[in-house]
Amino acid sequence: MTALDRVAILGTGQIGTMVGMALRAGPQLGVKEVAVWDRDPAAMDACQRRAGASRLLKGPRGALDSDLIILATPVAQIVELIRELGPRLAPGQLLLDTGSSKLVVVRAMRQYVPKAAGAVGGHPLCGGSEPGPWAADPSLLQHATFVLCPVRADPPSLGTARRLVEMLGSVPLELDAGEHDRLLARSSHLPHLVAAAIAEMNGEVPTRALFSSGLRGAVRLARSDPAMVASFVCANLEEVRAASRDLRLQLDRLLAAAASGEEHLVAELERARLRALQVGVN
Amino acid sequence: MTALDRVAILGTGQIGTMVGMALRAGPQLGVKEVAVWDRDPAAMDACQRRAGASRLLKGPRGALDSDLIILATPVAQIVELIRELGPRLAPGQLLLDTGSSKLVVVRAMRQYVPKAAGAVGGHPLCGGSEPGPWAADPSLLQHATFVLCPVRADPPSLGTARRLVEMLGSVPLELDAGEHDRLLARSSHLPHLVAAAIAEMNGEVPTRALFSSGLRGAVRLARSDPAMVASFVCANLEEVRAASRDLRLQLDRLLAAAASGEEHLVAELERARLRALQVGVN
Repeated sequence: MTALDRVAILGTGQIGTMVGMALRAGPQLGVKEVAVWDRDPAAMDACQRRAGASRLLKGPRGALDSDLIILATPVAQIVELIRELGPRLAPGQLLLDTGSSKLVVVRAMRQYVPKAAGAVGGHPLCGGSEPGPWAADPSLLQHATFVLCPVRADPPSLGTARRLVEMLGSVPLELDAGEHDRLLARSSHLPHLVAAAIAEMNGEVPTRALFSSGLRGAVRLARSDPAMVASFVCANLEEVRAASRDLRLQLDRLLAAAASGEEHLVAELERARLRALQVGVN
Repeated sequence: MTALDRVAILGTGQIGTMVGMALRAGPQLGVKEVAVWDRDPAAMDACQRRAGASRLLKGPRGALDSDLIILATPVAQIVELIRELGPRLAPGQLLLDTGSSKLVVVRAMRQYVPKAAGAVGGHPLCGGSEPGPWAADPSLLQHATFVLCPVRADPPSLGTARRLVEMLGSVPLELDAGEHDRLLARSSHLPHLVAAAIAEMNGEVPTRALFSSGLRGAVRLARSDPAMVASFVCANLEEVRAASRDLRLQLDRLLAAAASGEEHLVAELERARLRALQVGVN
């Protein structure tokens, strides 16, 4: 099993920084070093100020000294980093990512990481809507689901990844990458676009006084980091398109119920209300 | 100008109850009585327990003794109550409502309330997503926009309605009923249906562990009272349909941007992010 003495984190946005902070905040975890890199020096500096890093790297290849390399950039850069670092990984090293789209990541890992080294696709479901290292809050990792997508039949790598997830206080959930992407398109990726669409629709200045707490909730996801959202949407575009078709069908159903009488719409909304209550409160 | 000594509230859900609580909590406001009625005896009882009522009425016509009658039921019942009570109003009495769709209400007021009596369409933008009298929180009325839609050129009625709104701590905003409905379809009515649609799309049980705080925000409006939502959607269905077409066009635009390259989607999302920040934080 891979040691976890030396960890490198590439990408020090909200997630990378909170993972670094969590690993360094628990000396009992036994992590001796968290080396970080980000292509934005200000983000790297902020991560260090928030105690998310014990060492700054000069470039992504500096991570090749580490036992575990966590890729926490937007998805497109994760794929680029897998291409660059994957073939250079040694036996016993493990590559893990935190991107919100998993099929493109797992495919790149399968292609570029030698079998002797390990690779697992990961996705912690704990981001807040405000981007960047200053928004990092390691307590969000506590009890959060951390999806792990196997790259190959590789129990030792999965075991190490599970150990890391538990060190972070999160709950590992093993899931096929394609299934992850299908579900996340509906629960996260499309809702990000819908929030952006609703924000755009309400851009008229005279409406400002009409903004309600309901609208603030409906557009909250549109406050996320555009680069991050664009990257996971583009990496999962077919499923996002399918989810968009589902949404239109659901809306058509609700509008048809409304047209056939208030009591029909009430029945539809009663069912949706139970679903919404299952999603939980925050 | 109409006196505001005796107020009647018909409908003691979240809004009716919070208005009653606000009027009774400030003795300096000079309201001597808040008489309430709801077709659900439990809701009426809850309103009284929360100190939102000084007297319970046996039926809606009991309100005809009051200086001001506030209709705070779902929109369809507001229209029924206008039909029942409007023709019986005496000179100097004022009828006001709190429904989320205004054109059907203002039209019914114009038809059924004699010119000698007064009527104004109203909509306080302060509901929380949890329904019912127990969710009533009068502090939500503080600084909230309270739309007032004129029924006729009737400055005295509007003056009285403004006075009431200011007594509640809210901010009056005079707006044409049709314009209100057009804007609210986009900022509230359609977003309620979208939240319900997203909740429905995520109904598969195995996805439970994948629910994120982002999804909880996206479906929050689906936790609203189905009867209330169905009523304002059905009363404003043409504008809600138009808003739904707008939403689809916005989504098409975002998906086309994604298909033409990540940087195009980033540019769209940057703009939506500024809009979302204008909507505000909660």
